[in-house]
Amino acid sequence: MKEIGKVLRIGIIGTGAIGSDHARRINHVLTGARITALTDVHQPSAETVRDTIAPDARIFNSGEELISSAEIDAVLVTSLGATHEAYVLQSIAAGKPCFCEKPLAHTSEGAKRVVDAETAYGKRLVQVGFMRRFDRGYIALKNAVRHIGSPVMIHAAHRNQSVPGTYTTPMAIHETLIHEIDVLRWLLEDDYVSARVVFPRSAARSHSQLKDPQIVLLETANGVVIDVEIFVNCHYGYDIQCEIVGEDGVARLPEPSAVEMRVNGTRQNSILTDWKDRFVDSYDVELQAFIRSASSGVPGGPSAWDGYVAAITADACVRAQESNGAEVRIDLPPRPSLYD
Amino acid sequence: MKEIGKVLRIGIIGTGAIGSDHARRINHVLTGARITALTDVHQPSAETVRDTIAPDARIFNSGEELISSAEIDAVLVTSLGATHEAYVLQSIAAGKPCFCEKPLAHTSEGAKRVVDAETAYGKRLVQVGFMRRFDRGYIALKNAVRHIGSPVMIHAAHRNQSVPGTYTTPMAIHETLIHEIDVLRWLLEDDYVSARVVFPRSAARSHSQLKDPQIVLLETANGVVIDVEIFVNCHYGYDIQCEIVGEDGVARLPEPSAVEMRVNGTRQNSILTDWKDRFVDSYDVELQAFIRSASSGVPGGPSAWDGYVAAITADACVRAQESNGAEVRIDLPPRPSLYD
Amino acid sequence: MKEIGKVLRIGIIGTGAIGSDHARRINHVLTGARITALTDVHQPSAETVRDTIAPDARIFNSGEELISSAEIDAVLVTSLGATHEAYVLQSIAAGKPCFCEKPLAHTSEGAKRVVDAETAYGKRLVQVGFMRRFDRGYIALKNAVRHIGSPVMIHAAHRNQSVPGTYTTPMAIHETLIHEIDVLRWLLEDDYVSARVVFPRSAARSHSQLKDPQIVLLETANGVVIDVEIFVNCHYGYDIQCEIVGEDGVARLPEPSAVEMRVNGTRQNSILTDWKDRFVDSYDVELQAFIRSASSGVPGGPSAWDGYVAAITADACVRAQESNGAEVRIDLPPRPSLYD
Amino acid sequence: MKEIGKVLRIGIIGTGAIGSDHARRINHVLTGARITALTDVHQPSAETVRDTIAPDARIFNSGEELISSAEIDAVLVTSLGATHEAYVLQSIAAGKPCFCEKPLAHTSEGAKRVVDAETAYGKRLVQVGFMRRFDRGYIALKNAVRHIGSPVMIHAAHRNQSVPGTYTTPMAIHETLIHEIDVLRWLLEDDYVSARVVFPRSAARSHSQLKDPQIVLLETANGVVIDVEIFVNCHYGYDIQCEIVGEDGVARLPEPSAVEMRVNGTRQNSILTDWKDRFVDSYDVELQAFIRSASSGVPGGPSAWDGYVAAITADACVRAQESNGAEVRIDLPPRPSLYD
Repeated sequence: MKEIGKVLRIGIIGTGAIGSDHARRINHVLTGARITALTDVHQPSAETVRDTIAPDARIFNSGEELISSAEIDAVLVTSLGATHEAYVLQSIAAGKPCFCEKPLAHTSEGAKRVVDAETAYGKRLVQVGFMRRFDRGYIALKNAVRHIGSPVMIHAAHRNQSVPGTYTTPMAIHETLIHEIDVLRWLLEDDYVSARVVFPRSAARSHSQLKDPQIVLLETANGVVIDVEIFVNCHYGYDIQCEIVGEDGVARLPEPSAVEMRVNGTRQNSILTDWKDRFVDSYDVELQAFIRSASSGVPGGPSAWDGYVAAITADACVRAQESNGAEVRIDLPPRPSLYD
Repeated sequence: MKEIGKVLRIGIIGTGAIGSDHARRINHVLTGARITALTDVHQPSAETVRDTIAPDARIFNSGEELISSAEIDAVLVTSLGATHEAYVLQSIAAGKPCFCEKPLAHTSEGAKRVVDAETAYGKRLVQVGFMRRFDRGYIALKNAVRHIGSPVMIHAAHRNQSVPGTYTTPMAIHETLIHEIDVLRWLLEDDYVSARVVFPRSAARSHSQLKDPQIVLLETANGVVIDVEIFVNCHYGYDIQCEIVGEDGVARLPEPSAVEMRVNGTRQNSILTDWKDRFVDSYDVELQAFIRSASSGVPGGPSAWDGYVAAITADACVRAQESNGAEVRIDLPPRPSLYD
Repeated sequence: MKEIGKVLRIGIIGTGAIGSDHARRINHVLTGARITALTDVHQPSAETVRDTIAPDARIFNSGEELISSAEIDAVLVTSLGATHEAYVLQSIAAGKPCFCEKPLAHTSEGAKRVVDAETAYGKRLVQVGFMRRFDRGYIALKNAVRHIGSPVMIHAAHRNQSVPGTYTTPMAIHETLIHEIDVLRWLLEDDYVSARVVFPRSAARSHSQLKDPQIVLLETANGVVIDVEIFVNCHYGYDIQCEIVGEDGVARLPEPSAVEMRVNGTRQNSILTDWKDRFVDSYDVELQAFIRSASSGVPGGPSAWDGYVAAITADACVRAQESNGAEVRIDLPPRPSLYD
Repeated sequence: MKEIGKVLRIGIIGTGAIGSDHARRINHVLTGARITALTDVHQPSAETVRDTIAPDARIFNSGEELISSAEIDAVLVTSLGATHEAYVLQSIAAGKPCFCEKPLAHTSEGAKRVVDAETAYGKRLVQVGFMRRFDRGYIALKNAVRHIGSPVMIHAAHRNQSVPGTYTTPMAIHETLIHEIDVLRWLLEDDYVSARVVFPRSAARSHSQLKDPQIVLLETANGVVIDVEIFVNCHYGYDIQCEIVGEDGVARLPEPSAVEMRVNGTRQNSILTDWKDRFVDSYDVELQAFIRSASSGVPGGPSAWDGYVAAITADACVRAQESNGAEVRIDLPPRPSLYD
C-alpha cells in the first residue's frame, strides 16, 4: 500500500455523539475525504476521536482556529445548537464549505444572518443536516408523485418510542417536527403559508411541560393541507409515516424493510425503536453528497435558505401551539436568487 | 316441501334500489323473516319487487296503511329521506319494530321527535341503518382497542371514486361523513364536543358547489382528536381508512381481502371502486340482527338516539364548513335512560 | 308472526360436532330449509340437537329409516366416515338429494360404487363437503387466473398448529391434503397424473407413527407441477397458503382479514389457530348452495365424481409416501357424461 | 486538498460491464482502495475505464503481468468465466488477495485446484463473488432463524423477467440457481446431500434448448428439504423469494422496499425488472468487505471452499436435470481445516 490520491480535508467542530459518528463515517465508510482537524469545548473528547478514529487529525483549541487553518478544506459543525451560527458565519467568511447539523442557528434571526452572509459572499457554501432528503424512501416517494396527480393533502406521523423528561412541548417542533417541516416542502416543492396546532388530551406518559401527542396542520402556498401527528412517547417504536394524497391517487412512504415472521399466532415484522437506525443510510448519503459538493464546488443539498425557512416555520408552529387552535400565518421574505 | 315455521312478516316502504335489495336479502339470504307487504310512491316499482322477489307480499297504497296492517310485524323504511320521520313515528305509534335507513329524519329536530316518541312509548323499536357497526373489520378493530391503550387520536379517510355533479359540499357531511360520525363514536364509546373543517385547495374534479377534498376534525368528550379526510372524487377507488392511535400502540382497519398478483412489473391488489361492494356483508348482518331483535323483542343495533346524535353532529360539521377553520361546539342534550 | 312459506325439509344423520353445527346453520343462519329429522348412533346426542336447535325435528332410530321417511326432502350425512357410503347409496336409491361430508366413502372403491349408483340413477343428487370451493378467497384466486397466463406451477402449504397424538402419516393425506387435492384441481380445471412425496427430517413434535412435515408433489394432465407442504404440528397457527404461477404472473390466496397493530416494537396481525375459523363462512355458503340445489333440482357443488377422484388421488399419495420419493402414477377411469 | 492516507491498490482483470462497475465502486463509492492497474483482452476497454473512472491506473498487457506487478496489492478477477481459475491460481502463487466473480472456476475440478493451491499456501486469499451473503435482507433473514426453531424446509423462487435466446437449461443451474446454492447453505450453515429436479410443462417463452420453469429439490445433511422454483422467463419481473420454515415458525426474505401507490383501482408496489437493481447495495458491501479483509489480512466472505462446494452442487443439479426426477447424491470431500 502506498500514499495515493487527493481527498477533502475536513475539520469537525464538536466531537459528541453525532460529531464522532460523522468522523467514523468520513474516515471509514465514505470516499473522498479525511478528518484532519478536530475541536471540542471538552478537549479530551476530541482527543478520543483522534485516537480511535482519526489519527491524521490535529486538535485545535477552538472552532475559530480550526476554521481558519490552512490544513482544512471544509468544516463540519456538530457542536451545541447555540454555537452553530457563529461557526457557520466564520466558515463563510473563510470561504470554506460548511456542513451544519440542524439547527442552522438558534433563532430564525440567526438563520437570516447566515443567509445574508452567504448571499453577500455570492456563492453557496452551507449544507444543513436535513438527512431525510437523502433517504431512499423519501426519494422514491418524491418520484412517485408524478403518478398520483397534483398533491392536495399529506397525512404524516412522527412517533418516538419515548423522550427524556426534559423534553417539552415546543421541542416537539424544534427537535422533532423540524424534519417534517423540511422534507415535506422538499417533497412538494412548495412553501408554507399557515400553521395550526390541535391538542388531544395528553397521554399518560406526558407531564406538566409536555403536551403529547399533538397534531400540526400546515397549509402551503399551493393550497396543500398537511396534518402531522407528533407523538413522542408513543411507546411502541420509532415510526415515521407519510402519505401524499394527489388528485388521482395516493402514495405512501415505504416501511423500513423487515423480515416477516409467523410465530405464536401472529404474522409480524419488527418496528425500529431507536431513531438512529431509521435514517442511518441517509447520513452516509448526505455526507457523501457534501464531500462531493465541497470537492467539486457545485452546491447541493439543503441550503442555508432551507434552514432559514425551517426556522421561520418552526417559530410559527410554536406560536400556533399557544394559539388554541387558531391559524398562525407564515410570511417568508423573498428568496434571494442565489437559492433559485 | 311443506309449509313450516313462523317468520317475521316485514313490510317495506320504498322499493327503490336499497328497498328492493333489502327485499332480496330478507327473502333469499337471511333467515326468520319474509316480505309480506310493499308500498312505494311509484306503485309499479312495488309491483316489480313483488313479482320478482316477494311473491307473498301485498301492495299497499301508502306507508300509513302498510304500517297499520295486521299482516305485518315489522317495518322497513327505505323511502326518500324526507319521509323517514313520519313513517318511523307511525311505526312507534303502532308499536312495531322499525328499521330506518339513514337519515332517521331530515333534520335533527325531526330526529329529536323520534327520540321523544320512542322515549314516551317506553321501549326501543327503532334501528337506524348504520351498517358499519356490523362490519367484521370494524368489529375486529373495536376488539383490538384493548391491546393499544386508551385511544388518543383517530386518523380516518372516506374516499369515493366519484360522485354525481349534483353532489355539494354539505352532502359530504350528511351523505358521506355521517357513517364515520356514527361508527367512530361507537368505536370509542364516546361523544363529540366540537368540530372544525379545513379545506385544502379543491381538486380539479370539484365544481362551484363542491369543495373537495376536506378535512374534518372532531374532538370527543374524552379528549380524543379525530381527523377525517373526505375526498369524494378521489378517482382511484372507494377507500375507507381508519387508524386508532392509543397510548401504547396503533390499530388499523383491515383492507378488504384481495388476491395479490404479480404482473407487469407490479405487485398489486384490486381496490374496490363501488361503495356497494365495500360493506355488502354488513347489510346482511345488520338486517339479520334487526330480524332477531324484532322477533325477540330485545333491542339492538344503532338506536334512534344514535341517529339523533349523528344528526346533531352533522349539523355542527356543516356549520364548521362555513366557519373558516374555527371550532364549532357540539352540545348534546342529556341521554334518556331508555338508551343506556 | 304466522306460518309462512315452503322450505326444504332436511334430515341429519350423525349429530356430532359437525352435524350439530350444520343443524344450527340450517335453522338459524341460512334460508330455505329446516331440520325435520335427526338420528345418531348415540340417540341422546340427536335429542340434544332437537332440544336446543331443531324443535321441529323427529328422532329416527336409524339412518335408513330417516332416509326413507316421507317427512324429509334431503339428507345430510355427517356420521363417521366409514358409514358414509351406505347412507349416500340409500339416498340415491330414495331419489333424495344428499350432502355428504368428506369422505364420500371409506375407500375409493366405495366412492366408485356411489358414482356408479348415481350414474345409473341418471341424475346428480350428491354434493360432497369440500367447502373450500365456496371460500371467497379461493373464488377470487380462481378469477385471478385469467390475469396471470396459463398456470405452470402451484406452491401451496397446509399447516395446522397441532394434531392429536393419534394422527398418523397417512392421515396427512386423507384428512389434511384431501382439501388441497379437491380445491387445486377445481382451481386448475385439470386432473392429476402423478404424485411424489418427499420427507424432510421430522420435526420434534412428530412421533414414530407421524412423519411431519412432508412435501407432496403432484403433476396434472396439463403439466402443471404442484408442491404442497403439509405441516400438521407447525406450532404457530393454522395457515393455508396457495400461490399460482402462470406464464405471465403470480396470484396468491388472500390472507384472512385481520387488524394490523403496532405494539411493543412489532407490526403484527393475528394468525388463526383453530381451523374451524378459517373457512367458517364457506360452510354457510356451501350448505346454502346445497339447499338451493336440492330445492331447485339443479345440481351444483363438488359431485360424487369429485369425491371419487379425490379418493383415487389420495390413495396414490399414500402409496407415494411409502415410495421413497419415486413417482406414483394416477390413473383415472373415464368420466361419465353425467359429470360433464 | 492534499495527498493523504494509504489505500489498497487494486488491479482489475477484465473491464467489461461488471469489471468497470466494480472500478467505479472502488474509486467513487467505497473507502480504502484505489484502482491502480487494469487489463482486458480488448485493451481499448481497459483504456476507457482508465480514462473515465480510474486515472491512476496503469494498463497491463495481460492478467499475469498485472498480478505480478509490485504496483498492486490485490486482484479483482472479472474476466470471462473460463479464465478465472488461472488468474486465481496466479494470485495465490503471488500471495495476493483475490476477489473472483463467480464461477471460481469453469469446472468443479478447477475449483478443487484452487482450494488445493490455497490450502497449500496455508492462508485464505480468495473471496468469491457471492454477493447475496452481504444483502441486508438475507442477513436479517439469517438473524431471524433463531426465532422460528430449527429449520426443516425452505421454499424459494428465482424468477427472471426474461433471458436471451442463448440461455439453456443447464444455465439455469450454473448462472441462476448458483446464487441460491451458495446463500441457502450459508443461511442454514449446512451442506447438501442430494438434488432432484422436476419439470412442469415448459412455458411458451421457452424453446428447444430451454426447459423453463423447473423446480429443484435439495436435501441437506441436517435433513432440511429445499424447493427452489427457477423461472427465467417469468415475464412480470425479477423476483427473489425465500421462506424458511422452522419447527416453531416461518420467516420470509423481505421484499425490496417500494412506495405503495393507490391508483386506478389498484393498490400497488413496483417490482424490479432488472436483476442488477436487486442486490445493488450488496455489491458495495461485499467489495468493501474484500477491501477491509485484504487490507487487514483477516479473511472473510465466501471462500474458495464455498466456490468449490457450489460447483460440486451445481454439477449434481445438472445431472439431476437429466435424471427424470430421480435423486442424485452429492458427495463432498472433507473440508480442509483452513476453511473451518
